[in-house]
Amino acid sequence: MNDRLTLASDFLEQSRKQIDRELDRLIRAGAASPRLDEAMRYSVLGGGKRIRPALCLAAAQALGSDQTRAIAPACALELVHAYSLIHDDLPAMDDDDLRRGRPTVHIAFDEATAILAGDALQTLAFALLSEAPELSDHQRITMINTLTRASGHQGMVGGQAIDLESVGRQLTIKQLENMHRHKTGALIEASVRLGALTTDAVTEQQLAALAAFASALGLAFQVQDDLLDIEGETEVIGKRQGSDVAREKPTYPSLLGISGAREHLSNLLYQAQSALDNFGEEAEVLRAMADYVVARSH
Amino acid sequence: MNDRLTLASDFLEQSRKQIDRELDRLIRAGAASPRLDEAMRYSVLGGGKRIRPALCLAAAQALGSDQTRAIAPACALELVHAYSLIHDDLPAMDDDDLRRGRPTVHIAFDEATAILAGDALQTLAFALLSEAPELSDHQRITMINTLTRASGHQGMVGGQAIDLESVGRQLTIKQLENMHRHKTGALIEASVRLGALTTDAVTEQQLAALAAFASALGLAFQVQDDLLDIEGETEVIGKRQGSDVAREKPTYPSLLGISGAREHLSNLLYQAQSALDNFGEEAEVLRAMADYVVARSH
Repeated sequence: MNDRLTLASDFLEQSRKQIDRELDRLIRAGAASPRLDEAMRYSVLGGGKRIRPALCLAAAQALGSDQTRAIAPACALELVHAYSLIHDDLPAMDDDDLRRGRPTVHIAFDEATAILAGDALQTLAFALLSEAPELSDHQRITMINTLTRASGHQGMVGGQAIDLESVGRQLTIKQLENMHRHKTGALIEASVRLGALTTDAVTEQQLAALAAFASALGLAFQVQDDLLDIEGETEVIGKRQGSDVAREKPTYPSLLGISGAREHLSNLLYQAQSALDNFGEEAEVLRAMADYVVARSH
Repeated sequence: MNDRLTLASDFLEQSRKQIDRELDRLIRAGAASPRLDEAMRYSVLGGGKRIRPALCLAAAQALGSDQTRAIAPACALELVHAYSLIHDDLPAMDDDDLRRGRPTVHIAFDEATAILAGDALQTLAFALLSEAPELSDHQRITMINTLTRASGHQGMVGGQAIDLESVGRQLTIKQLENMHRHKTGALIEASVRLGALTTDAVTEQQLAALAAFASALGLAFQVQDDLLDIEGETEVIGKRQGSDVAREKPTYPSLLGISGAREHLSNLLYQAQSALDNFGEEAEVLRAMADYVVARSH
């Protein structure tokens, strides 16, 4: 188990560097508004574990695909994630002033710039996929289609809407899960799908297995997030501790209790790992990342 | 001239119906959040002249391409336009409470829903292009790439950022033009490009000529908008008359005077029409639309 955590943490570190270099290069050329570009850079390059890009790279590796083909999709996933964070933090939404240990974009810049930076980062994600090197037009189109389904009104944005509608309401565990499947799960699932789609050799069964892995992992990630919100310290998790509770957001611990939530987490980890049973050694990094997500402290 | 205005107005009416039917069909299936979908529908189906879709259809026609292939791209353009209107109207941006004669989305719903509806409409535009029927993967990718360039930080969103930075500042005519080329011009240019890209027979020269046409038309549209903001009545233009002046926004009339702005408008119309000199009868609708844009009263 400890070897796996080291494997995951090394892989995360290595892919983070690769992705950060690429993201840094991306938001540079030809600024129409230097301030807008600065806000985009501030948000995208302000740290972050890059878990979605790493999942994308690891999924490519699990299928024996060349990892360099997964870099553009990995960055596109991070851009969509970054845009969603900027908008989620806005005063009209979660009204957060701290993210990754720094002032959120609307605090560091202003609200209008934050809205526009989010908008432009979403656009940039699709621009990047439409130009992804070493991929066929068909692969690009399939990835764009996958990413739109995962991030739009039937995916991530739909989940954020459900989330806003749920504040102060009593949810069942099923409703909570439905919210998270949309809000964070869809993009995490898309992360492994995009990695897998870098090779035409991927089978429908493999895609389904990877999606099942990611789906369980995405929920596990959320349960752990909820637990950290209660147990973590602001300094370590990089956002206000207890902010879910303060906003009366329904969470796994509030529905299942802390030990119930921990048990749920173990079950989800088991589901995730089982989904990869038919994969070989190449999927070891993916397996390690699941362990890592559950063990992480921030 | 009068025949042309009739031609344009008939074409606009006919394509508006076609596009509205298609848009209505689009935002229906599988709601994650019914309220979010309702806000998306409210914004997209709440009227509008559908000038961008009509330009897309007319450009396809100018090249003898089958118009049905232009319907999906035309809708994608309108979705991007609709998303930008929702976000531009937000309190942190232009703070408008009236659009197309109805309460803006954040008034009719709420601010958070308006932000999310805009986000999801942008995603939907790229989803639609990625599935556009009767187009090759290469055509879809080229269109998506064209639309991202026109609408992102180096296009429309960049222009909106420049606009916000310009409030209360004195601009030169060149700076004003640069703002409009980004803010509205880029998407209008993309409209004819996407229509032209429905056929592989389009040449670089034809694309450049259509882009020059659209570029002049886009600026003409803006000059006419500025004039209407001064001269029009709220009831007819569907938004608060004088709202530019009230916000101390730089406009063509404020820089050139009203008669100077009118002269500029004529020159732009001439430029637009000249760009189509090498096109035949098939471009008659495009020519008519340019006349229409300049003559419109709302």
